[in-house]
Amino acid sequence: MAPLYNRRVLVLFTDFGNRDIYVGQVKAVLAARAPRVPLLDAAHDVIDFAVEPAAHLLAALAGEYPRGSVFLAVVDPGVGGRREAIVVDADGRSFVGPDNGLLSIVWQRARARRCQRIAWRPARLSDSFHGRDLFAPVAAALASGRVPRGWLAPTRAPAVLLDAGDHARVIYIDHYGNAVTGLRVRKLGRGSALRAGGRRIPHARIFEAVKTGEIFWYANSMGLAEIAANRASAARKLGLRVGSKVSAAGR
Amino acid sequence: MAPLYNRRVLVLFTDFGNRDIYVGQVKAVLAARAPRVPLLDAAHDVIDFAVEPAAHLLAALAGEYPRGSVFLAVVDPGVGGRREAIVVDADGRSFVGPDNGLLSIVWQRARARRCQRIAWRPARLSDSFHGRDLFAPVAAALASGRVPRGWLAPTRAPAVLLDAGDHARVIYIDHYGNAVTGLRVRKLGRGSALRAGGRRIPHARIFEAVKTGEIFWYANSMGLAEIAANRASAARKLGLRVGSKVSAAGR
Amino acid sequence: MAPLYNRRVLVLFTDFGNRDIYVGQVKAVLAARAPRVPLLDAAHDVIDFAVEPAAHLLAALAGEYPRGSVFLAVVDPGVGGRREAIVVDADGRSFVGPDNGLLSIVWQRARARRCQRIAWRPARLSDSFHGRDLFAPVAAALASGRVPRGWLAPTRAPAVLLDAGDHARVIYIDHYGNAVTGLRVRKLGRGSALRAGGRRIPHARIFEAVKTGEIFWYANSMGLAEIAANRASAARKLGLRVGSKVSAAGR
Repeated sequence: MAPLYNRRVLVLFTDFGNRDIYVGQVKAVLAARAPRVPLLDAAHDVIDFAVEPAAHLLAALAGEYPRGSVFLAVVDPGVGGRREAIVVDADGRSFVGPDNGLLSIVWQRARARRCQRIAWRPARLSDSFHGRDLFAPVAAALASGRVPRGWLAPTRAPAVLLDAGDHARVIYIDHYGNAVTGLRVRKLGRGSALRAGGRRIPHARIFEAVKTGEIFWYANSMGLAEIAANRASAARKLGLRVGSKVSAAGR
Repeated sequence: MAPLYNRRVLVLFTDFGNRDIYVGQVKAVLAARAPRVPLLDAAHDVIDFAVEPAAHLLAALAGEYPRGSVFLAVVDPGVGGRREAIVVDADGRSFVGPDNGLLSIVWQRARARRCQRIAWRPARLSDSFHGRDLFAPVAAALASGRVPRGWLAPTRAPAVLLDAGDHARVIYIDHYGNAVTGLRVRKLGRGSALRAGGRRIPHARIFEAVKTGEIFWYANSMGLAEIAANRASAARKLGLRVGSKVSAAGR
Repeated sequence: MAPLYNRRVLVLFTDFGNRDIYVGQVKAVLAARAPRVPLLDAAHDVIDFAVEPAAHLLAALAGEYPRGSVFLAVVDPGVGGRREAIVVDADGRSFVGPDNGLLSIVWQRARARRCQRIAWRPARLSDSFHGRDLFAPVAAALASGRVPRGWLAPTRAPAVLLDAGDHARVIYIDHYGNAVTGLRVRKLGRGSALRAGGRRIPHARIFEAVKTGEIFWYANSMGLAEIAANRASAARKLGLRVGSKVSAAGR
């Protein structure tokens, strides 16, 4: 594909659920405050409460959105508690979210980066919905290019830093039953096998290269190793869930 | 949060389902007839066929969208039958939908209000999909500020009026398993306990104030009492469904 | 309904799943390359891997979107293999997708039509995500009216042609449990009965014409026979799935 044009879009990455009433409320704030910026949904059903797999998924997914994108990233079981709210700029994209590790893989893997604390607090700040009341106005301000003075304050780095190496676990399972791992292919080597769910899993380039129902792994479009089965659910066949361990099994 | 700017947006509140083929068809009509108005999804998986909890949810949710919003509100098990189609203006927002009680809580709680009957009928009116054929063109006309003469006719009030007091039942369950009730917090008092699923449920301000798995209620961001569990599904633990009874249990 | 205005919109019809991470990536490409064209979701949870029912659903659904619409249509179990990529123009709408039969019902039923092969290949073409890397840039180019020279090459017709007659099977089940069939009503006659799940199913015009729980079929808003139950799931009651056989049972 030709490189994506630089373009300001607002990208939502949350655990608010696609079928619930929360995404619409966040978008109402964004549409009112940044009227001309397209709103895109990256994910809303990443596993609830699990910050670490979400952080790895976000780091892999971010590169698939245009430079200039502003991400509203909220997986935030500690909402209303003491964690800070931050903005991370990383290689031309911005990320607004809680300082609970969610933005820390993006941060640690970036070449050009900056971290700021959100100093502003809205007149109305609910205890349970900072996505709407705090993060959305900040994301809209960034996307429209007009951040009021005093909203952001410099800080050295996110306070919570998760291990930014490859994550040898399942980080996402899609509706086909494919299990995305936190293992980056360019570190793994395409020829090697994986081990997961008690089984050795060979590599194949495409689904049609294996028989119907057969399990294999392939380099997915985000550059991660993904365990799949041809026209079947690999996750069900192997009993995999988000968090299940995966390892390289050699050639 | 700073007050939302006044802004015309079209807001969809239906039981058409997020994963089905109906929302897209409604949006095709809206996008063709009101091209510059943003389309927002408030809810599409409110419980099928159940008008009363949906009416209470709509009343609580409406205030989270900007003044000037036009709501297309369709939970309409009687589609194709004899119920009328109406437009309710309430405190700066408009609501287009069936006259089956769905808009009646919004109506009764409004200070400034007006009710009109939809007199227009489209050339093509399917028996099963008034959301697309009848309500969407009217909502688009309202949102674009150009309602053709004769489409709307004055009427005194909605014909079907549900009880507009607090609804002592579960009205919505989200994907986390939190159970939203129809009890308004400012009537309830924040310190009191609730009773639901055979259990006394104490109040807590935030999730982090209770242990993992513990059940509590809190004042949610719409001003309703919501029963939750820290990092667990309260609905599953208590056996709650939309329609389950809830009561105040005193201090 | 008054006829839809001619309007260029981009319509997504895929099996990528509403809750997964794929639709957002496709929309990022479309939003970057065709910034002013609205993006509409026709369906993302048509049954995985099943090309034939999806092809019939697409043919019925296409007419509900404005002339000028460009459809990105991807149900593509053979992605990365040898099937071609094509563009079908049919009666004022365009369809971009794999040449695996998916576009062949639309093609065979069109009066004015043209078929082209996608000759262009992007610099980066993942093995598993042609929806994002190949079809989305082509759909965006069509929708913005600027297709670079050499991207498309004339061809006579799609290579894979499925039977374009009525499909006597369930092709889609919605979240209410209604079962959409591939039988067109104007070929069937509204008075006749159907047979499915071992039962004779009478016709009714609207849901309110039958008792709660009763099963019937009606002419749905796309012109297809649809099996439903009043305030209940017909699919569950009859044990229907996508692919289940349906037949006309006479009067």
